[in-house]
Amino acid sequence: MAPTTRVSRLREKQSEDRGLLDNLLDSTPLATVAFVRDGLPVALPIGFARVGDEVVVHGSTGSPWLRELAAGAPVSVCVSTLEGVVVARSGFESSFHYRSAVLFGTFQAVGEGEKVRYLQALTDAFIPGRSTELRASTARELAATLALRLPIEADNWSLKIGDGWPEDPESDVAGGGWAGVVPITTSYGPPLRAPDCDPAIPVPPSVRAMSGEIGRDG
Amino acid sequence: MAPTTRVSRLREKQSEDRGLLDNLLDSTPLATVAFVRDGLPVALPIGFARVGDEVVVHGSTGSPWLRELAAGAPVSVCVSTLEGVVVARSGFESSFHYRSAVLFGTFQAVGEGEKVRYLQALTDAFIPGRSTELRASTARELAATLALRLPIEADNWSLKIGDGWPEDPESDVAGGGWAGVVPITTSYGPPLRAPDCDPAIPVPPSVRAMSGEIGRDG
Repeated sequence: MAPTTRVSRLREKQSEDRGLLDNLLDSTPLATVAFVRDGLPVALPIGFARVGDEVVVHGSTGSPWLRELAAGAPVSVCVSTLEGVVVARSGFESSFHYRSAVLFGTFQAVGEGEKVRYLQALTDAFIPGRSTELRASTARELAATLALRLPIEADNWSLKIGDGWPEDPESDVAGGGWAGVVPITTSYGPPLRAPDCDPAIPVPPSVRAMSGEIGRDG
Repeated sequence: MAPTTRVSRLREKQSEDRGLLDNLLDSTPLATVAFVRDGLPVALPIGFARVGDEVVVHGSTGSPWLRELAAGAPVSVCVSTLEGVVVARSGFESSFHYRSAVLFGTFQAVGEGEKVRYLQALTDAFIPGRSTELRASTARELAATLALRLPIEADNWSLKIGDGWPEDPESDVAGGGWAGVVPITTSYGPPLRAPDCDPAIPVPPSVRAMSGEIGRDG
């Protein structure tokens, strides 16, 4: 039996809107994947991308944990962003603005025939438009890379969103303390040229397009 | 036997510097905690703070998963930040700047006698200096709150840091493509006053102090 995807606490914050799930998954490339090894939980971070109805990760064919995932180890994939600090009039009511998704299932290795397409999708998720600026992957690179996909189904995910104002009781509001939200934003800074990159080489369009705030609109 | 804390891939990125671990843990309040339920992995996000040699979380005493943790479920706690996109001259060499820590062990419930101190530490980790601006927690609030602590020991954590330039082979450097890093920064925005907060009430010092870039210096 799969773990429940019903949120236990603050249930009103649960969303079943697949569009909002996709917005979150498309707004950050960082996931944490948990699996069980020797009966114990292991949680590791990894870059990921949503490709249609799948969550896709990749890495070295020599990676022990990715091989465990490819072999069918059950996983829980958590994707969370922190978008503000809710400053209430008590510690008890203080909290965060966040969006968090948890998915359950098992990854499958992407077959050789589809690997190029999936790897390009990953590249373009991390750096939009970059794949068309790059040479093709070599056979050696492809052979060294494991790409894994996890289906997003109707019932294998949950989404929780905290985005409200402090909910202080009247007695605390009457106490005259300040309350509000301090937004947290994530942004790209100006690109830094690598030391081995000739200053005459222009910054490519994909990199020039990466600027300003990330992710709030998916 | 506890899971290994030896990094398998890109081992040169592993750090055993406890100061660098603390810098990371102090630079973000967001952790992902994995545990095993009915033999399957579950990964959930939660706010946390480092308090000395402990990782501390809190939540409702009615939270099923926090009760499982309090009962001694083995956990893996992952804390990761994404600090840049490494734009190489191939998809294969492209990657991220990141810091990620993984801790293993079991949480213990903080006893009643110490709960106030731990909850104040959490409040001050999320909003530095805030606890002295707030009324004391009520007995009812304390009774409704479960605080949990996980020891940071000599050998129950691993830290991996990716912060270098692209490492393209000479043939790709000679190809004339651009390479570099696009930094990712996380910042506090200007505080937003809650609708129920009288505009005459000044923004408190703790909130005024939350501004600018978060976390790069721990």
